[in-house]
Amino acid sequence: MVLAVDLGGTKIIAGIISDGQVIAKERCPTPAEEGPQSVISRLFSTLDHILGIKGMKVSQLDSISLAVAGAIDIKRGLVTSSPHLPGWHDVPIRDMVREKYWVDTFLLNDASAAALGEHRFGAGREVSNLALLTVGTGIGGGIIINGGLYNGPCGSAGEIGHMTIDVNGASCECGNTGCLETLASGTAMAEEARKRIARGEKSSMVGMVAGKIEEITAEKVGAAAREGDSLALDVIAGAGTYLGVGMVNLVNIFNPEMIVVGGGVANLGELLLDPARRVVKERAFRLPAQAVRIVPARLGDEGSLLGAAVFAREQSR
Amino acid sequence: MVLAVDLGGTKIIAGIISDGQVIAKERCPTPAEEGPQSVISRLFSTLDHILGIKGMKVSQLDSISLAVAGAIDIKRGLVTSSPHLPGWHDVPIRDMVREKYWVDTFLLNDASAAALGEHRFGAGREVSNLALLTVGTGIGGGIIINGGLYNGPCGSAGEIGHMTIDVNGASCECGNTGCLETLASGTAMAEEARKRIARGEKSSMVGMVAGKIEEITAEKVGAAAREGDSLALDVIAGAGTYLGVGMVNLVNIFNPEMIVVGGGVANLGELLLDPARRVVKERAFRLPAQAVRIVPARLGDEGSLLGAAVFAREQSR
Repeated sequence: MVLAVDLGGTKIIAGIISDGQVIAKERCPTPAEEGPQSVISRLFSTLDHILGIKGMKVSQLDSISLAVAGAIDIKRGLVTSSPHLPGWHDVPIRDMVREKYWVDTFLLNDASAAALGEHRFGAGREVSNLALLTVGTGIGGGIIINGGLYNGPCGSAGEIGHMTIDVNGASCECGNTGCLETLASGTAMAEEARKRIARGEKSSMVGMVAGKIEEITAEKVGAAAREGDSLALDVIAGAGTYLGVGMVNLVNIFNPEMIVVGGGVANLGELLLDPARRVVKERAFRLPAQAVRIVPARLGDEGSLLGAAVFAREQSR
Repeated sequence: MVLAVDLGGTKIIAGIISDGQVIAKERCPTPAEEGPQSVISRLFSTLDHILGIKGMKVSQLDSISLAVAGAIDIKRGLVTSSPHLPGWHDVPIRDMVREKYWVDTFLLNDASAAALGEHRFGAGREVSNLALLTVGTGIGGGIIINGGLYNGPCGSAGEIGHMTIDVNGASCECGNTGCLETLASGTAMAEEARKRIARGEKSSMVGMVAGKIEEITAEKVGAAAREGDSLALDVIAGAGTYLGVGMVNLVNIFNPEMIVVGGGVANLGELLLDPARRVVKERAFRLPAQAVRIVPARLGDEGSLLGAAVFAREQSR
């Protein structure tokens, strides 16, 4: 059994995984603003709690596997930095967990874990090469090549959200310019909607937030779009188009059989994926564009947990 | 022994490769404008010629390996399209060569071949993960992952020059928008120099072409830069900066140990690579940015030949 954790900027999800099944799951909010020490204390209490609920001892675990929303130094087990976890710089979380629980512990990026999960148990079971994008507050990425997770020599590979697609664009929190994330994430969609409303465009979103435009989120954009709000639909189509531009880059460089789109914003479904597919068909090289399938993720928030468990098993061998 | 061919838009180079050495080499111009039939006739006569010079029979060859400057359908042995070879659409060149010479024949992209060549015999011998860019008339690419050429399921992977880095940029011949190739290739440099001279900027390049601005090529830009011409230096630095933006994308997504830069324009050396390195250091994720080495190719025009021979040997196994 593997105790897997998905540690993100808003929530910590812990799951006990046995034979590719999540047999117990706990979630709690991440006290991200309080810094690494608080987050790690909360992580420990969440792990203690899930073990307690199931009446399990640490000795029953094969390993603990941590999927964290940040840049990872896989060899040294560090979270080197994270836009979602303020104050995290070279935090040796793998060894901190290992030393507390005295069990083999592994660390990888959350979107890499989701890619592995979707590949083994979800949308990507029948392919050997895929790219996964998690579109939420930011845009994460993971890559499966020849049936295995591609982490790169440092373990930092897969930052698909941080490719420049607009060299003259806005600065990104990562230090780069015009990243895909700045144009196609949930944050980018909400910002675009707020900006256009502030400029005078009409939208049902204004009523939803009782005029408090600053409260418009990607979820609100999605809700308005489902009710046919034309500004919301247009904002989502715009983000989908940018997402498609990022996918063209992946298709031309990687020739993946599949691109899986997960994360909160992926709930928008075809509203987001249709424009992305159109851009890929129009702009990418013909052969790989015909070959790639662009599909939603299937495993929701269990993708990262299941993938983290697979990673731990494969690393333990 | 492998008879390897590098078929580009301007020249055909054929080489006989034995034990990783080019033991004979022939080159002739590509009659690209005359279309596929003429190019293939010229290819046949080049192959006949080099065999004749060496007094060799086809039966002494293990295989023929074709590295072609175009998009490849590796399973069917087609050149599906090529910006450098007008009129080439789904040309079954692999089988045409196989049927003429009655010997095992293989086909791959020329920059992929160069990546394999540099990995086995050139700049990338000590690493397992690298990306190669050939910067010339266009920008080609090849990827080595875990010590092997990564072609992708269709065999079309590696088109690094055709990633969008300026979503609002110019159309590219490939059908995409704002590709790296439109901003950092030799063609782009020459165009930028001509445009700025036409706008009234001073440069020693004007004298080099006796006032015929349309005759300014990337070679002329390079020659002027070496003599200290400030416009030429600025144009090259600009292209190097864009090249760096493309490299940031590779570093964030792939985490390669090395990026190798080959092709005609790579002769500019540090003038081109220094600004690229600076951008990578400034903008890419810290860990993979520190890890990557950005170096010139070492094998010149023999890289593709040697790599094509390696590809044929590995495919034959």
